[in-house]
Amino acid sequence: MPSSKLRIGIAGLGRMGKRHAVNFHDLTQRAQVVAVSTPDPTERVWGKENLEGVKIYEDYDDMLAQENLDAVIVASATSVHAEQAIKAISKGYHVLCEKPLSIDLKVARSVLQAYENSKKKNPKQKVMCAFSRRFDASYREAHGQIAEGQHGSPVVFRSQTADLLDKTGSFVDYAKTSGGIFVDCSIHDIDLMLWFLGEDRKLKSLQAVGVTAVHPELNAMNDRDNAVARLEFDGGKVASLYCSRMMAAGQEDTTEIICEKGSLRVNMEGRKNHVVVHDAKGARRDLPQHYYERFREAFITEAYEFTTCCLDDVAVPITLSSSVRAIEIAMALQRSLVSGNKIYFGEDGQEISKTMSKL
Amino acid sequence: MPSSKLRIGIAGLGRMGKRHAVNFHDLTQRAQVVAVSTPDPTERVWGKENLEGVKIYEDYDDMLAQENLDAVIVASATSVHAEQAIKAISKGYHVLCEKPLSIDLKVARSVLQAYENSKKKNPKQKVMCAFSRRFDASYREAHGQIAEGQHGSPVVFRSQTADLLDKTGSFVDYAKTSGGIFVDCSIHDIDLMLWFLGEDRKLKSLQAVGVTAVHPELNAMNDRDNAVARLEFDGGKVASLYCSRMMAAGQEDTTEIICEKGSLRVNMEGRKNHVVVHDAKGARRDLPQHYYERFREAFITEAYEFTTCCLDDVAVPITLSSSVRAIEIAMALQRSLVSGNKIYFGEDGQEISKTMSKL
Amino acid sequence: MPSSKLRIGIAGLGRMGKRHAVNFHDLTQRAQVVAVSTPDPTERVWGKENLEGVKIYEDYDDMLAQENLDAVIVASATSVHAEQAIKAISKGYHVLCEKPLSIDLKVARSVLQAYENSKKKNPKQKVMCAFSRRFDASYREAHGQIAEGQHGSPVVFRSQTADLLDKTGSFVDYAKTSGGIFVDCSIHDIDLMLWFLGEDRKLKSLQAVGVTAVHPELNAMNDRDNAVARLEFDGGKVASLYCSRMMAAGQEDTTEIICEKGSLRVNMEGRKNHVVVHDAKGARRDLPQHYYERFREAFITEAYEFTTCCLDDVAVPITLSSSVRAIEIAMALQRSLVSGNKIYFGEDGQEISKTMSKL
Amino acid sequence: MPSSKLRIGIAGLGRMGKRHAVNFHDLTQRAQVVAVSTPDPTERVWGKENLEGVKIYEDYDDMLAQENLDAVIVASATSVHAEQAIKAISKGYHVLCEKPLSIDLKVARSVLQAYENSKKKNPKQKVMCAFSRRFDASYREAHGQIAEGQHGSPVVFRSQTADLLDKTGSFVDYAKTSGGIFVDCSIHDIDLMLWFLGEDRKLKSLQAVGVTAVHPELNAMNDRDNAVARLEFDGGKVASLYCSRMMAAGQEDTTEIICEKGSLRVNMEGRKNHVVVHDAKGARRDLPQHYYERFREAFITEAYEFTTCCLDDVAVPITLSSSVRAIEIAMALQRSLVSGNKIYFGEDGQEISKTMSKL
Repeated sequence: MPSSKLRIGIAGLGRMGKRHAVNFHDLTQRAQVVAVSTPDPTERVWGKENLEGVKIYEDYDDMLAQENLDAVIVASATSVHAEQAIKAISKGYHVLCEKPLSIDLKVARSVLQAYENSKKKNPKQKVMCAFSRRFDASYREAHGQIAEGQHGSPVVFRSQTADLLDKTGSFVDYAKTSGGIFVDCSIHDIDLMLWFLGEDRKLKSLQAVGVTAVHPELNAMNDRDNAVARLEFDGGKVASLYCSRMMAAGQEDTTEIICEKGSLRVNMEGRKNHVVVHDAKGARRDLPQHYYERFREAFITEAYEFTTCCLDDVAVPITLSSSVRAIEIAMALQRSLVSGNKIYFGEDGQEISKTMSKL
Repeated sequence: MPSSKLRIGIAGLGRMGKRHAVNFHDLTQRAQVVAVSTPDPTERVWGKENLEGVKIYEDYDDMLAQENLDAVIVASATSVHAEQAIKAISKGYHVLCEKPLSIDLKVARSVLQAYENSKKKNPKQKVMCAFSRRFDASYREAHGQIAEGQHGSPVVFRSQTADLLDKTGSFVDYAKTSGGIFVDCSIHDIDLMLWFLGEDRKLKSLQAVGVTAVHPELNAMNDRDNAVARLEFDGGKVASLYCSRMMAAGQEDTTEIICEKGSLRVNMEGRKNHVVVHDAKGARRDLPQHYYERFREAFITEAYEFTTCCLDDVAVPITLSSSVRAIEIAMALQRSLVSGNKIYFGEDGQEISKTMSKL
Repeated sequence: MPSSKLRIGIAGLGRMGKRHAVNFHDLTQRAQVVAVSTPDPTERVWGKENLEGVKIYEDYDDMLAQENLDAVIVASATSVHAEQAIKAISKGYHVLCEKPLSIDLKVARSVLQAYENSKKKNPKQKVMCAFSRRFDASYREAHGQIAEGQHGSPVVFRSQTADLLDKTGSFVDYAKTSGGIFVDCSIHDIDLMLWFLGEDRKLKSLQAVGVTAVHPELNAMNDRDNAVARLEFDGGKVASLYCSRMMAAGQEDTTEIICEKGSLRVNMEGRKNHVVVHDAKGARRDLPQHYYERFREAFITEAYEFTTCCLDDVAVPITLSSSVRAIEIAMALQRSLVSGNKIYFGEDGQEISKTMSKL
Repeated sequence: MPSSKLRIGIAGLGRMGKRHAVNFHDLTQRAQVVAVSTPDPTERVWGKENLEGVKIYEDYDDMLAQENLDAVIVASATSVHAEQAIKAISKGYHVLCEKPLSIDLKVARSVLQAYENSKKKNPKQKVMCAFSRRFDASYREAHGQIAEGQHGSPVVFRSQTADLLDKTGSFVDYAKTSGGIFVDCSIHDIDLMLWFLGEDRKLKSLQAVGVTAVHPELNAMNDRDNAVARLEFDGGKVASLYCSRMMAAGQEDTTEIICEKGSLRVNMEGRKNHVVVHDAKGARRDLPQHYYERFREAFITEAYEFTTCCLDDVAVPITLSSSVRAIEIAMALQRSLVSGNKIYFGEDGQEISKTMSKL
């Protein structure tokens, strides 16, 4: 095992940035967090107090200019993900970029382009979008069993991301720039769908509908608080997605992969821990309140494996092109959600323009 | 409590006919099965051996002509449901008719019309389509909690009927006359959907897609072995359905009703009984193999309550018009499944004709 | 199938008497409830209103004298179980007697003696103590798997009967004549223990301790509201029992049978029905509130099978001698509970007298 | 937050030693593993390859003599736990010692004595026995709810440690020096029992029985492969323990704490991850195969918190005296298991000598 550590710079110390910082700094032996950058003074104070030996920058470009890094973790605001990722890519650094790359498809594709260009010169360079569920032990177990052929070919993929109701309403503000519920909530389900059904599988059609049950103000932003979608792929595969922002008991991520000879359920009964209480209200358990309670271990594994892939020149487990594709699909679903129209795709993967209208 | 029993004639002694016969004859004290009719000689032998004191007819019309009945249970082949039901209705008898009334919408509507005509003369007459899940204790508990307002208004309804893979292939033959997977499998989910979201709620659109994963010969019959659908109702309600005919572990009926303040899950973890085995294959339980293992109690309750409603002049819990509506919806889903088109409905409940085409 | 029905008389129309009456009268086709007797006028009124065509007696002896019966169901107060059972046995009737036969071991043995005497003259006569769990589908599944050798020999048997807290306190009154918590609550677990470990297996020792956590007044009656016990059998088998009268969520009957190659769990997660509610209190389900909610189906099966065994001369599934043995064991546990002493048994099955004292 | 790290030496790099080494070295930011010692050359090779920057000693005394440490983790063979712990204690070091301190009660008490003596001079010195379940999120949740009074006072404590069957038989060898099944398997349950029922609660009696179902050779070592025990404490508390070494599906640790107003279940349904497979064998999940799969997170938390307690002078969450008491109880259970006798304890906590004999 080589003794050199992966020298890392982190962009952003918001909610996810802090978590990445702790995971790489404290829990990933082969990583060394060298520097972080954030324009937010409060975050810089947090960094000083919690990231011993790490240099704190206000400006991302300054960090890139002054530090000798091997890798950059982009955990800043979504609006700058792509720009910051491209700058790091251009320097030949490995990049782990928070999802989504962008809510503008062209911009997302430009990240992929930058990587493809850079990789010609830096064949060992790794760029990965942080789809944490691919590192979750349960999804891996499920994927492994299917890959081994234990259950036959997958036929139907059903997945949901349903978030705890945010009573503060801060979520509604966030919705303005989130890209919509499919880009914000379902992007993980879409990534899993591609992973389980095949990243190159051709999409034939998709369709979505949704409602605003608890946040009617979302309508003005062309968004919804509950939505269902279904997608049709070639080779006889269908997918059904559900996303919600009004769960009462906690965050509920569940996935079913129904194969020809068996089916796999991931987290159909959420649970925060192993405690069940029996009292006058019945037998009950708590659910995770947020995705991080469910996926904390996956994020730590992600940090560990990203580090390992970079240091040992092993392919990262998620291709950047599939992450761009996830955005494409999420945005098409969001369009269908708003228009109500079913969208068809041709053999070339392009949307088929239609004169479909509601009369 | 009156001492007279409900005098019942049963049409058909096939799988469901036998079950109704046992349930009414042996397990429903206030019912008296007087006669049964079936053209099948094997079924008549079964009747003689198992239905003590019951007269066995070959011909349904003979039974109607010769017996003095109060009620008729129509449990014959789907193709004669409507005709037999109408004959009994015309005699003023109470009727419990197996689902579906018909796979021809006009015919189904004619049963409703016959009942409406007859009821003017026989205001106490009861006619009900046998949607057994409405008698299941779990669905009733769920519906009761929502009706009491415990969880706020229902927003998203998700339900599935997924049958054990039929390795004999006899199912494929049956598919020729079943009306298709939505009429055959999902009709119960559609009935529940109407019950939970509101029987009069206006449908705005629906869309379905499906695949043939294990029974490719179904394509020739315009059918599928797995299908997903979503429906959009006014008032901000959506529904997502899944039906399958290739489950490996057993029959899996599950329903989720997601309300503004909470959500209800019915049978998300199926189980045949209370046994869990821990052995080298892990911790495991069996699932019901067929719907009757899951719903036997509901069928017995149905027999008991139908009898009570007739004898005591209480409204039956399922209106006949909602059962006709379930067929309308199932058939529209089946059309969408085959065409791939999204179907829109106008304010008047009629489909909106569209020049929608795949270019 | 013979056309004659089993002519039944029922002694007692209390809680269990009513249930037996309904089960035999309404739900067991081959049984005909001819008469019932009860000294309680209110129960007689209930009988008149609910048991159509059944003669109602005040006096048990009158019923026996005047009716032509095939079988008697003894569902009266425990104090008269044995006497009434013996009278019916002496007339050559089949008898289904509620548990326990008696809380006096000599008296219980006298019922067995009466049956053994009578059976010489009436070799087809059936007498069975109503241990309903033997008719439960889950216990039968478990027993069947073990009998087939699927899991190797059973080694450890753990079982509990834990009742919902009775806030009315009426339970404490009942405790005066119940024989104590092991006779009242654990008798079913003891019966199951004998069934799973072997009805003839020799007991080597037993020991019990208990507390009075919510009903301190039980101490005065030499009873407890929670108790644990362990028993040791020859052949390398041990059993652990738990009984409680203070459950908050409902009635909790669970059993584990740990075998050499696997283990079986029966009802480790109780549930009243298939509904799970997700709300601000977490994900929760209701438990059965009373044993009848859990075991109603088993009681109906018991009625059906007892009737069949009598009519078709098939051996009943529970030997009367094992039911007497269950009382022996329950009473020994109760003695150990009160004295604190471990009790040893010799090769002959007799307790070994000891000069054991707490110094 | 202070910048100095806790300088740690680790004794032993066996199974647990390796885990502690990784947890402290890689996953605990405020800890610095300075040195390890192990007489095993293979373990030293592992240390060189995996513990970058850590000095490797063959001899524990050499490590103590030459290194400047703050804390020692004793993870060597049980037979030297006490001796090594006492040496480190005498140097004023903080000590985290694997359980059990010793299987000789006098020796275990000598560790406590050494700590009490040393602490007079080193009031900030921390010594803790590594009862990892106290750091498990689920047990903490349960303990916290009870401490807050949510469920009333605990009355009955039931707990089990049931290990996967070891087909290699290496376990039998280990049994020679393990102290027996209660010292080896149940020590964690005993620790939890003291935590939940009260560390100072007086024991009134205990009794154990066991069998050798799969490893008959254990009898020669006065050990068993399955055992049940019950204990009686003052204040109306009882406990029931079960330990086993022949589980087929995996490791099964479960605990129930039954309180006056509710009850808590910890891990009643074990699961390795969130995957459930539905196939022809039913619906099934895997169980953890070893305790570390269940408790890995607890061990990491233990490392983190021990480090924090030492650096910040916070009391460790487990008193050393309670750990000695756990050994006392485990050994008394083991004696009862072998003799079959119930053991009584007087007001002074001493065993009451009895002339109890099996005649």
